[in-house]
Amino acid sequence: MNVPTKVEVIEVGMRDGLQMESDFVDTGTKIALINGLMDAGVRHIEATSFVSPRAVPQLADAADVLAGAHRPSGSRFAVLAPNLKGVERAIEAGADEIVVFVSASESHNRKNLNRSIDRSLDDISNIAAQVQHADIKKKGAIACAFGCPFEGDIELSALMRIVGHFHAVGFRALTLGDTTGMATPALVEHTVAAIRDDYPDMRLTLHFHNTRGIGLANVMTGLNAGIDSYESSIGGLGGCPFAPGASGNICTEDLVYLLNEMGIETGIDLDKLIAVATRMEAVLGRTLPGQVMKSGPRLRLHEYEDAACATG
Amino acid sequence: MNVPTKVEVIEVGMRDGLQMESDFVDTGTKIALINGLMDAGVRHIEATSFVSPRAVPQLADAADVLAGAHRPSGSRFAVLAPNLKGVERAIEAGADEIVVFVSASESHNRKNLNRSIDRSLDDISNIAAQVQHADIKKKGAIACAFGCPFEGDIELSALMRIVGHFHAVGFRALTLGDTTGMATPALVEHTVAAIRDDYPDMRLTLHFHNTRGIGLANVMTGLNAGIDSYESSIGGLGGCPFAPGASGNICTEDLVYLLNEMGIETGIDLDKLIAVATRMEAVLGRTLPGQVMKSGPRLRLHEYEDAACATG
Repeated sequence: MNVPTKVEVIEVGMRDGLQMESDFVDTGTKIALINGLMDAGVRHIEATSFVSPRAVPQLADAADVLAGAHRPSGSRFAVLAPNLKGVERAIEAGADEIVVFVSASESHNRKNLNRSIDRSLDDISNIAAQVQHADIKKKGAIACAFGCPFEGDIELSALMRIVGHFHAVGFRALTLGDTTGMATPALVEHTVAAIRDDYPDMRLTLHFHNTRGIGLANVMTGLNAGIDSYESSIGGLGGCPFAPGASGNICTEDLVYLLNEMGIETGIDLDKLIAVATRMEAVLGRTLPGQVMKSGPRLRLHEYEDAACATG
Repeated sequence: MNVPTKVEVIEVGMRDGLQMESDFVDTGTKIALINGLMDAGVRHIEATSFVSPRAVPQLADAADVLAGAHRPSGSRFAVLAPNLKGVERAIEAGADEIVVFVSASESHNRKNLNRSIDRSLDDISNIAAQVQHADIKKKGAIACAFGCPFEGDIELSALMRIVGHFHAVGFRALTLGDTTGMATPALVEHTVAAIRDDYPDMRLTLHFHNTRGIGLANVMTGLNAGIDSYESSIGGLGGCPFAPGASGNICTEDLVYLLNEMGIETGIDLDKLIAVATRMEAVLGRTLPGQVMKSGPRLRLHEYEDAACATG
């Protein structure tokens, strides 16, 4: 076992979660939610996306969100940037990090970005050149890294070609995105080992969805492989267009609860995090999939007198 | 790593799940659900409970369920039996195995069984003597093995005293029950190791609830410790009276999906299992927490033409 003593939890609910919401969440509310996350100790957040406001109207206020949020010292505000124009807007808005993505699946990439993987890789080269002298970090992200809803399994060689491209143009941080919840412990172990062998200086982040209920089982596999960076969403916000009713991203509070109970340092206060998740439920007007927000931490005790027991 | 190549999945939804349901599920429906589970390849089931029909009216038809269900060769129909009277009824009804339980928490045991742990241990001695010459297996179960909703943490010495008693009166199979979802990977690792050290011939089963979202993370820890027997509930049926809205037992389909994807043999057909979970939802008239039943197995592909993608 090679379990890290400290883990970075990257909150992606404000981007990966909110982008699925059709009712616009006003900018002030978004800022208040982000400030709540920072107050809970979150220090790395994917705060918004500089995609076309026409494509994702929910995130049209990206620059205002970045300008208005409290950004404590040591925090890193990442933003998704799909193209040169988006990167330019992200730099202007003062983002700390851009996340540049491509899908490991040709059909998913065409559906999502309306271009071939090869053309996306060219875009990534151009973006790398564009930010070379800018004061901004860059991170790659590969969607459908563990499977595609149209194509099924992704060949490891196809994935490795993309990892290699990111590496060649200077990326040293990479997220493996389990966009539609197809990761399994076996795949995670295999994929992480392959990338580590070929690119030992690439820092990996794992981004799981709980679409098939095994998101935190995959985190356990990642931890055992020594991976110390995970993306999750407050309340388990998010979803998958191919699995109506199923869960979205793994839930930040449940992840932090798990890590805290394993004695792994996150720097995040669980009670404050639960308060933000509860506020997110109120904002969206519906129940979110998070569990710890419903049950409370394990040592929240109950009154003996009022309690009913189920037998066994 | 010491991950087993084969795992026994024990279905407990018909007992631990249904006992929480206030609307009576008719006997024919219960039998049909059990037959569906057997057809899917489940071979070990906690089918019902010989508790007082006044205490749990839902399971008042225990003998009829056992008499009516298809019991394929090699199957094991276990039943909960809280006292000498229950054991007698279980033997008469032709159960293959009785499960005899006590809580690791004094206050939970009083609330649940209306007696002290010491008195429950005496009952267990008497039951062991009663079944000594009967053609029935016996298994112990310890509720609140990983924590109590009234008392919080359970001292390992308190747990070990109970394990020792079961062992002394001849039990060689024991379920550690995470009755209200308080198990964590650290606790599981620690507890399993302690019992193994002192009682290497005691076969352990882990019974987790997903109350705080980390049920399958705990399974991963159990697997890494070599534990090859787990209890789960179809659809994730069940619940915890202390966490309204939170999940119940870990979900059988999600567990079987995880194990199958890890290459661990279960003998269970996932598609048939999902069909039973779907039927259970129809019987109860509500959505259950299971995820794979909503999303389908990972290689169920989607039509490219009709699909919408979320960015990233």
